[in-house]
Amino acid sequence: MTTHTVGALPVNDNESTHALDRRHVFHSWSVQGALDPMVIAGGEGSTVWDFDGRRYLDFSSQLVNVNIGHQHPRIVEAIREQAGRLTTVAPAHANDMRGEAAARITAHAPDGFDKVFFTNGGADANENAIRMARLVTGRDKVISRYRSYHGNTGAAIVATGDWRRVSNEYATGHVHAFGPYLYRSEFWATTPEQECERALQHLERIVQCEGPSTVAAILLETIPGTAGVLVPPPGYLAGVRAIADRYGILLILDEVMAGFARAGEWFAFDAEGLVPDLVTFAKGVNSGYVPVGGVLISDRVARHFDDRMFPGGLTYSGHPLAAASIVASIDAMEQEGIVEHAAEIGRSHLGPGLAALAAKHEVIGEVRGRGVFWAVELVSDAETREPVTAAWMGRLKGELLQRGVLPFTADNRLHVVPPAVVTPAEVATGLQVVDETLAALA
Amino acid sequence: MTTHTVGALPVNDNESTHALDRRHVFHSWSVQGALDPMVIAGGEGSTVWDFDGRRYLDFSSQLVNVNIGHQHPRIVEAIREQAGRLTTVAPAHANDMRGEAAARITAHAPDGFDKVFFTNGGADANENAIRMARLVTGRDKVISRYRSYHGNTGAAIVATGDWRRVSNEYATGHVHAFGPYLYRSEFWATTPEQECERALQHLERIVQCEGPSTVAAILLETIPGTAGVLVPPPGYLAGVRAIADRYGILLILDEVMAGFARAGEWFAFDAEGLVPDLVTFAKGVNSGYVPVGGVLISDRVARHFDDRMFPGGLTYSGHPLAAASIVASIDAMEQEGIVEHAAEIGRSHLGPGLAALAAKHEVIGEVRGRGVFWAVELVSDAETREPVTAAWMGRLKGELLQRGVLPFTADNRLHVVPPAVVTPAEVATGLQVVDETLAALA
Repeated sequence: MTTHTVGALPVNDNESTHALDRRHVFHSWSVQGALDPMVIAGGEGSTVWDFDGRRYLDFSSQLVNVNIGHQHPRIVEAIREQAGRLTTVAPAHANDMRGEAAARITAHAPDGFDKVFFTNGGADANENAIRMARLVTGRDKVISRYRSYHGNTGAAIVATGDWRRVSNEYATGHVHAFGPYLYRSEFWATTPEQECERALQHLERIVQCEGPSTVAAILLETIPGTAGVLVPPPGYLAGVRAIADRYGILLILDEVMAGFARAGEWFAFDAEGLVPDLVTFAKGVNSGYVPVGGVLISDRVARHFDDRMFPGGLTYSGHPLAAASIVASIDAMEQEGIVEHAAEIGRSHLGPGLAALAAKHEVIGEVRGRGVFWAVELVSDAETREPVTAAWMGRLKGELLQRGVLPFTADNRLHVVPPAVVTPAEVATGLQVVDETLAALA
Repeated sequence: MTTHTVGALPVNDNESTHALDRRHVFHSWSVQGALDPMVIAGGEGSTVWDFDGRRYLDFSSQLVNVNIGHQHPRIVEAIREQAGRLTTVAPAHANDMRGEAAARITAHAPDGFDKVFFTNGGADANENAIRMARLVTGRDKVISRYRSYHGNTGAAIVATGDWRRVSNEYATGHVHAFGPYLYRSEFWATTPEQECERALQHLERIVQCEGPSTVAAILLETIPGTAGVLVPPPGYLAGVRAIADRYGILLILDEVMAGFARAGEWFAFDAEGLVPDLVTFAKGVNSGYVPVGGVLISDRVARHFDDRMFPGGLTYSGHPLAAASIVASIDAMEQEGIVEHAAEIGRSHLGPGLAALAAKHEVIGEVRGRGVFWAVELVSDAETREPVTAAWMGRLKGELLQRGVLPFTADNRLHVVPPAVVTPAEVATGLQVVDETLAALA
């Protein structure tokens, strides 16, 4: 099916790529027989294209990971350079890029975070953070939230709260709580202050009823992502920190999606007035240019393992090629002011732009977010907040693609999550397409 | 600490690399305070070196993953080429390199294996294979072996049999059996035939006692690797296949370490006269140049998900950069005859060479292996087979490094696992160093 070869790799077209995919590729979270995947051949900045040159404005950042944009030249160059130096080395040895990458991550962390354990992605980052919390506390339970996603491996998928957990419950020690989400409050609250206060009371009651001496960790996405970009009300996370402290529980913040410019901060918790014990990351740390994730470890937790074996590890921990891409990505984010840019795009463009759409389209029930991390909640009835149907969402997705915007959708929501390098003009173009599409679907 | 920058990346030396590592890198499976890691700066073929130009013959292949040797120019070139095309794309889309990689893997699989689910490494490959087996059978238990390693995430680490499981037992549905290992038989056997027959009887009794209708899968490393390169006696794996069939159980073979030339075959089970239902891979598929793993899926299992949701997935599934490195690696292995070369190195060089050492050194209790996959069992008493001490192994490791050979050791064993491209001259050099070292330690 391959047409010809240039250099080391074969060259394809849309047709051969689609055919190869359908014949040989088993897809994530899918009914395999129902798939008709779109071909993506290349990209640059906030744009991707197929082999026929059809271009799309990428308002998905793929899986909300391409924070620095597609094919940033500096990261591509770093990968090429490190590929020529050394691609892989066992985790037991010392490699310069691994150390450089860890140093850059800790440089953006709060005081008292000096060590990084590298993994292959967000799931095994959460696995290892949970492991550390259990070993440090000598307790086994992990409290996470129903509206959450933490990864697809043994413990991470059971810590996950959404439907993806349900057929995968083969891990012990997981308990789920509700978090603050005023638009669909689980606490009969009517104000952000009330939602915050009641969510904290609910969480503390769960800790008390599970038995505080059995709870190793509270594991939260700082801003739950795929669950709906649920920006916490002011004071909520500081309140969780206080509960954790009251009962000797470690606080793990999952920054896999929220970190590294997505929320307009290096870490989303930077804006929340608290410091966790462990932070997990992946995606934005290198925009997924090479698979990598990790755990940023507070000195308190790290010290526990100074004279005790840490019983976890993996072949590609601190992979030099992944590490080099982290080094270049963080350097580029610093020097190009990408984190500040993301915050400004949220403040001056996506925030006001989406608010204007909400004022205009009755189907928009709520808009939430900050930085380049936004959710638009779509409802068939503004009063009852009844979600639009899956069929309606399918039409929305199709129409947006038709108009050249690649969207990220989840349940009844359009997540507006472009790369952090998106320009004001691209935001305007994308939002105009959303505007037209919602009008057409009305 | 960085001395200067050339191109996109900083440049270091041994001292700065070691200092960065000790300050910021949290290591796998280690007491963190006791670490003094060796610096590795670069490599080529079967050799690695540090920044001072000190060179080592790599008889470890790092973590037994660099099957094609360090910095194979064709794979480096493929990574560089794909880096310039497209580094990352969401798993929902179709990408040409993902399809090409899957096609190359299935081309080396038995008939009836047409689909590949890509993961980030071996652990999540096993997680997803276990998930598939549970969903296809509607059962929950997984039988694996005490002498095994399957990865460090939730289910994979509990499927693991060795000590690494013990502090991590937070997954349900795992049962462990003993496997054939005549040198330290669990079955009071004295011949390979007896060991095989009794190991099969033991496994079938465990299936019966657990309740066959509760057992989803038998999960085995085709040749247990870190557990001791335990080459199965003839007929054992075919016997396991028959047990699985008798009770409607799926057979998952973990080829993460044994596959892609390591055992002198594309898949180690190719030599064993059976076909499994699922195969997991990582390491040798691209020699770890980019983190990747996956599940090779039989049509029988794949069909189950044609009209049912597969509840598993990950952001970097089928990562283009990883896929490109698989394409180049399999193409190079084919065109350069690397699998055949590995088999021949085992047959004509490592096998006879290690046998000669065993005849000469009383400390060698047994030598096992094939291809470039060998274990040397070291004992303080040939009669009782008492393992040498950890302190003795520490001295062995230090002396081998001193003489320029980078070894892989596990428990009381030296694993002789060079890249599959190792030359007869390099084998001779390495074995001579082992010979001298054992003589010095006697």
